Amino acid sequence: MKEKFLTLLLIIMMIAPSASGANKYEASVPYKIKNNTAVLETPKREKGQKSALRLAVDPIKTVRIGFVGLGMRGAWAVERFMFIDGIEVVALCDKYPQKLEPMQQILEKNNRHRAAEYSGEDGWKDLCRRPDIDLVYICTDWLTHVPMSVYAMEHGKHVACEVPIATTIKDCWDLVNTAERTQRHCMMLENCCYDFFEMTTLNMAQQGLFGDLVHVEGSYIHNLNSFWNEYQDNWRLLFNQANRGDVYPTHGMGPACQLLNIHRGDRMKTLVSVDTKSFNGIAAARKNMGAKSFANGDHTITLIRTEREKLLEIQHNVYAERPYSRMYQLTGTEGFANKYPIEGYAFRNGNRLVAKIPEAGSITDSETFVNSELMEKIREAYLPQIFKDIEAKARKVGGHGGMDYIMDYRLIYCLHNGLPLDEDVYDGVEWSCLGELSRISLENGSIPVEVPDFTRGEWNKIKGFGYAVTK
Amino acid sequence: MKEKFLTLLLIIMMIAPSASGANKYEASVPYKIKNNTAVLETPKREKGQKSALRLAVDPIKTVRIGFVGLGMRGAWAVERFMFIDGIEVVALCDKYPQKLEPMQQILEKNNRHRAAEYSGEDGWKDLCRRPDIDLVYICTDWLTHVPMSVYAMEHGKHVACEVPIATTIKDCWDLVNTAERTQRHCMMLENCCYDFFEMTTLNMAQQGLFGDLVHVEGSYIHNLNSFWNEYQDNWRLLFNQANRGDVYPTHGMGPACQLLNIHRGDRMKTLVSVDTKSFNGIAAARKNMGAKSFANGDHTITLIRTEREKLLEIQHNVYAERPYSRMYQLTGTEGFANKYPIEGYAFRNGNRLVAKIPEAGSITDSETFVNSELMEKIREAYLPQIFKDIEAKARKVGGHGGMDYIMDYRLIYCLHNGLPLDEDVYDGVEWSCLGELSRISLENGSIPVEVPDFTRGEWNKIKGFGYAVTK
Repeated sequence: MKEKFLTLLLIIMMIAPSASGANKYEASVPYKIKNNTAVLETPKREKGQKSALRLAVDPIKTVRIGFVGLGMRGAWAVERFMFIDGIEVVALCDKYPQKLEPMQQILEKNNRHRAAEYSGEDGWKDLCRRPDIDLVYICTDWLTHVPMSVYAMEHGKHVACEVPIATTIKDCWDLVNTAERTQRHCMMLENCCYDFFEMTTLNMAQQGLFGDLVHVEGSYIHNLNSFWNEYQDNWRLLFNQANRGDVYPTHGMGPACQLLNIHRGDRMKTLVSVDTKSFNGIAAARKNMGAKSFANGDHTITLIRTEREKLLEIQHNVYAERPYSRMYQLTGTEGFANKYPIEGYAFRNGNRLVAKIPEAGSITDSETFVNSELMEKIREAYLPQIFKDIEAKARKVGGHGGMDYIMDYRLIYCLHNGLPLDEDVYDGVEWSCLGELSRISLENGSIPVEVPDFTRGEWNKIKGFGYAVTK
Repeated sequence: MKEKFLTLLLIIMMIAPSASGANKYEASVPYKIKNNTAVLETPKREKGQKSALRLAVDPIKTVRIGFVGLGMRGAWAVERFMFIDGIEVVALCDKYPQKLEPMQQILEKNNRHRAAEYSGEDGWKDLCRRPDIDLVYICTDWLTHVPMSVYAMEHGKHVACEVPIATTIKDCWDLVNTAERTQRHCMMLENCCYDFFEMTTLNMAQQGLFGDLVHVEGSYIHNLNSFWNEYQDNWRLLFNQANRGDVYPTHGMGPACQLLNIHRGDRMKTLVSVDTKSFNGIAAARKNMGAKSFANGDHTITLIRTEREKLLEIQHNVYAERPYSRMYQLTGTEGFANKYPIEGYAFRNGNRLVAKIPEAGSITDSETFVNSELMEKIREAYLPQIFKDIEAKARKVGGHGGMDYIMDYRLIYCLHNGLPLDEDVYDGVEWSCLGELSRISLENGSIPVEVPDFTRGEWNKIKGFGYAVTK
């Protein structure tokens, strides 16, 4: 009797902990909560895969491109590529055939051949199977990014894909595994890394002007009220309606992770997220599509601690009645940089700048931002040379003030010269993974979540970020 | 045999969970980790205590004051009180007797009687025991705030005490319990609530100009490199050396919590904190006192979610080489306000302002801040009248641009008129409790922590913040 009782008690106790510790959200990848922290399973690197760090392929003299998705961003991209040498637009694809002809006219106006046309549900697959394409450039809705990117790589193509490249952790791993197996480039098109203030500041950080970076902030705060109708069939509002978390993190993450040398000497280790309920979000969804509920909080903040014990903060709010902000702020042991709402630099003293800028000797403390004259000199001295050469053209072509053009230019330059891309497959998934990781934290009451190491142990092999250039 | 084995297994299993779930930090108040969240014990309200919400006492015609602590802030306070009518400086106290005479000279220079003098380790106790004092004004180091405040209240005195008024949760409860038992005022001297932009913005928020407030940020980012020597025997660096967490949260918390109506219709529910390692902090401690270790991270961020599912962010960094910032930012459903690095307002449209400011009709979206002309009109229209009356005098007296004077003025005004103070005992502990709560989160790997309800269920009794005034 006593034995039976003890056995029963034992069984109850064995069940109890797992029941009380049950995950409140079923993620795309299994996870356990250990020491109050969510830990996701990391798949092993399969046979036939190898690291895609510093991946370089043979130079491609003329990059033959197929564009998939010709909505707002896809159409802009086709226009920008008219100003890039050494490319050929081989094929155009959109689900809706009526999107094709305006693009063909852009090609004709620029004295280029009309491209092959694809449309319908599976047109993109036919495009990917063409043997005469080097690069598939994807500007579709978020949910199609991964199947298209994977399929394109499996058919031997390099991929450039809009942000976020993935919305789940399982999809992040699918991209990494496919890129490692096929040894194809898979670049997420994070344009904000190519804005002038960001490029200048990154260069300054790499040269140690801010000392050790302690804290970096980025955000995507952009009132999309006047944009919701631009997304075919409300796909973006529908996605936000279904998903809590920072669903659009990459514009903040990209520049911030480059500053912190993520998978180039440091890595994200744990994160926590906190959000608000939906205020303006549900109002927009009610107005635009009669929605009655809305999962995505108006304001979502994620704090990430790195292996080197630095701090990265990312905010998301696409519903706020306030000016646009990507924040872009860094606090270093020797200085400070801030982009929104005003651009500014501050330094403990001018010692580190004075070799290039003698006037910087006047800086004796970090209590105030440097004056506008010095700001201009800093910009002249520290915008990387490779961007100075094309700055005028970039500003003329436009695309978010030139940064979109510079991004495309760098992608094609690296393919022409057989160089590693600025943004590799690990960057793309690291900058995108916040989507589901923040949700795991939120749905479990803001618990810490371990950030997967998508390089599987190789985060410390490369020392610092750099743009590849020919000798 | 089997029974013995089962019993043994059972004992092991009963021990194991508590061992693996052991708290990694022993707090001042016991806590348990439930559902991955730290939950602190809340003491019951003892017999003989009653709520101190809206506490008012009989009008005091002449407020007789004893000052304790005559260092940097105490000396400034004595000087400011020379410009306030209806007060008498009865006693002065500092551990070091040499601090007394300069204060006496201030009194004499202002044609006032010299005050009674107290010094040494226990001088403050003798001061508190005097029957002819109404208010003890405490400007000592952080660790003496609670014993002094409690002792003063127990001896029938009202208390005004510098920030943070408490550094542990146990101390927070001691203050609340003493104030509830003695029915004495216990105001933490949070001066930043009295800065002009903050008072104007709070007034606008109360009138609904920003709609529902979704997210509020505050911070204390202040490079103290040139101040460390001002703190007698390095007490501040020593405190930071011993304590991880946001040890100085109140300048951000005060204005932010007033905006969110904390314990006036909403309450803080859970928080998470993340910090960096020590970079500049340990360097300062090494230089100033030969320290070899330093617990306080350079940058600490805390995210707090409220009962009404709003979000409050607080940052702490007293080591950074960057311009001063208390951030002070709010995001509402209808508009936005920002103080650092530039003051600005933005609104969805001018509808809510147009009755007072016809020119606000020109505001048609929140994409840009309103222009400087409108800013000035907003300031004129929304700075509360009670502060307009003394603004000129406040700016002349000075003290952080006038806010310190306005704080003292309001304290004495309310005592003169028998009104509740602007900042009650619950405010003081709510704004201070981040110190140990952030540490509990950090020392357990950034887990969520439930914020104690110091009102014990009465957080929703008062509807919105307001300044008490005579009819």
